[in-house]
Amino acid sequence: MAEQRLSLEQRIRAIEDRLEIYNLIAGHPPSADTGTAAYAEAVYSEDGVFDRGPGLTSATGNTVIGAMLQSPPHKAAIAGGLAHFTGLPHVAIDGDSAVVISYLQILTPNKSGDPVEVPNHGASRGYHIHRVVTNRWDLIRTPAGWKIKRRTLRLVDGSEGSRDLLRGAFAAEAS
Amino acid sequence: MAEQRLSLEQRIRAIEDRLEIYNLIAGHPPSADTGTAAYAEAVYSEDGVFDRGPGLTSATGNTVIGAMLQSPPHKAAIAGGLAHFTGLPHVAIDGDSAVVISYLQILTPNKSGDPVEVPNHGASRGYHIHRVVTNRWDLIRTPAGWKIKRRTLRLVDGSEGSRDLLRGAFAAEAS
Amino acid sequence: MAEQRLSLEQRIRAIEDRLEIYNLIAGHPPSADTGTAAYAEAVYSEDGVFDRGPGLTSATGNTVIGAMLQSPPHKAAIAGGLAHFTGLPHVAIDGDSAVVISYLQILTPNKSGDPVEVPNHGASRGYHIHRVVTNRWDLIRTPAGWKIKRRTLRLVDGSEGSRDLLRGAFAAEAS
Repeated sequence: MAEQRLSLEQRIRAIEDRLEIYNLIAGHPPSADTGTAAYAEAVYSEDGVFDRGPGLTSATGNTVIGAMLQSPPHKAAIAGGLAHFTGLPHVAIDGDSAVVISYLQILTPNKSGDPVEVPNHGASRGYHIHRVVTNRWDLIRTPAGWKIKRRTLRLVDGSEGSRDLLRGAFAAEAS
Repeated sequence: MAEQRLSLEQRIRAIEDRLEIYNLIAGHPPSADTGTAAYAEAVYSEDGVFDRGPGLTSATGNTVIGAMLQSPPHKAAIAGGLAHFTGLPHVAIDGDSAVVISYLQILTPNKSGDPVEVPNHGASRGYHIHRVVTNRWDLIRTPAGWKIKRRTLRLVDGSEGSRDLLRGAFAAEAS
Repeated sequence: MAEQRLSLEQRIRAIEDRLEIYNLIAGHPPSADTGTAAYAEAVYSEDGVFDRGPGLTSATGNTVIGAMLQSPPHKAAIAGGLAHFTGLPHVAIDGDSAVVISYLQILTPNKSGDPVEVPNHGASRGYHIHRVVTNRWDLIRTPAGWKIKRRTLRLVDGSEGSRDLLRGAFAAEAS
């Protein structure tokens, strides 16, 4: 609401920041589902942290995080058919840092079950929604564009962890 | 296509409107899944209407709509694991009002069934897509930002109601 | 990162392009789920191609593509309850052309199975995710706005086709 005090150039810059961040978030699923390590290396900061929560491997450092996408288990998941599906993220930018809150589904084709026919859309056994997670992306501005300093995700399973992340959308809004 | 006749400032303002509305829509799932009444109170107008369609409770007034998120049944839904998942919305702004058409999924973890294992992604019973709904958000500009005058949602169940809402995207486009 | 060399007007134009493209992508599900042929006719170029991949009918030309939405099989799918659900797209604009990479789910209500009750959200048999596809939209700028020159989609089934499309996000980024 305070944008009137900013110059046109500053307002355009804020908008460009926002759109750059949308593409950063939108680039994650294509990277994860193809094992494109170069993307992860480019968008995480050198000391960036990828915190996947209890029960899954986490990692620190852009090259380590990129390498995870080339690990044999991740390649096996890709070979089975893998889709990271991201909803509309909430983005709050504050100068040279930004907080993004987003939801993500991880889907794989069902391997068993009866096929269902939908007219004009073929037959399909459907998809298994393996995980629904909430995400908090702590971003920083660098001379080479916005980078991920920390990405934290938590499983939607009824426990408090995923709700704590979601509340970050309102803290950022208020600041 | 008529933007050439607008000043740079007017064009920037229209873009800022659009981005503010994206965040308004993106803020809804974190609010619904944490029971954050303050968000609903802030984004609905005082006389705002939340029309959930046949079979579910509707409400009028920003404080009443906010209070629904604190009701015991809603809290029980949250405790079981609840994710509102929103797709990319269609946004049409016309001066001080706007029409947003969006899709929403409501997901909960499956409580039974065999766990499925996905390499590098753990085991999961999967998620139940409880509802898929179409949404029409009628927004108005106020001195305190864009507010919801009416949100209408209809279940995707083959009946005409959800299709009627969707057609609002094309009416707005043509205006 | 090169935007500093552009005029404010050029930067605003690039932003308006991006937002117009978001609405073009967001308009597709309401069109597909209501059988609104006029939308497809308006957003495809006259020689536009809709390539649905192996096993499904493809089409060339905006009026032919629009007519598919009015075919009896497509109308039967709509009557059963149909939801095209799109995630956040990755958009790369290069002058008068653009490449969009997006994911899409196609959902229908389950016709059998036990209803599940969720407090404050009624009972539901849930939804069948019939298809998860990756999409590449090759767009061109025309005097009448951005148009689809080619839309290619591939099923997420573990085969290479869908991954090839996804890699387009990184090629565009690099250019």
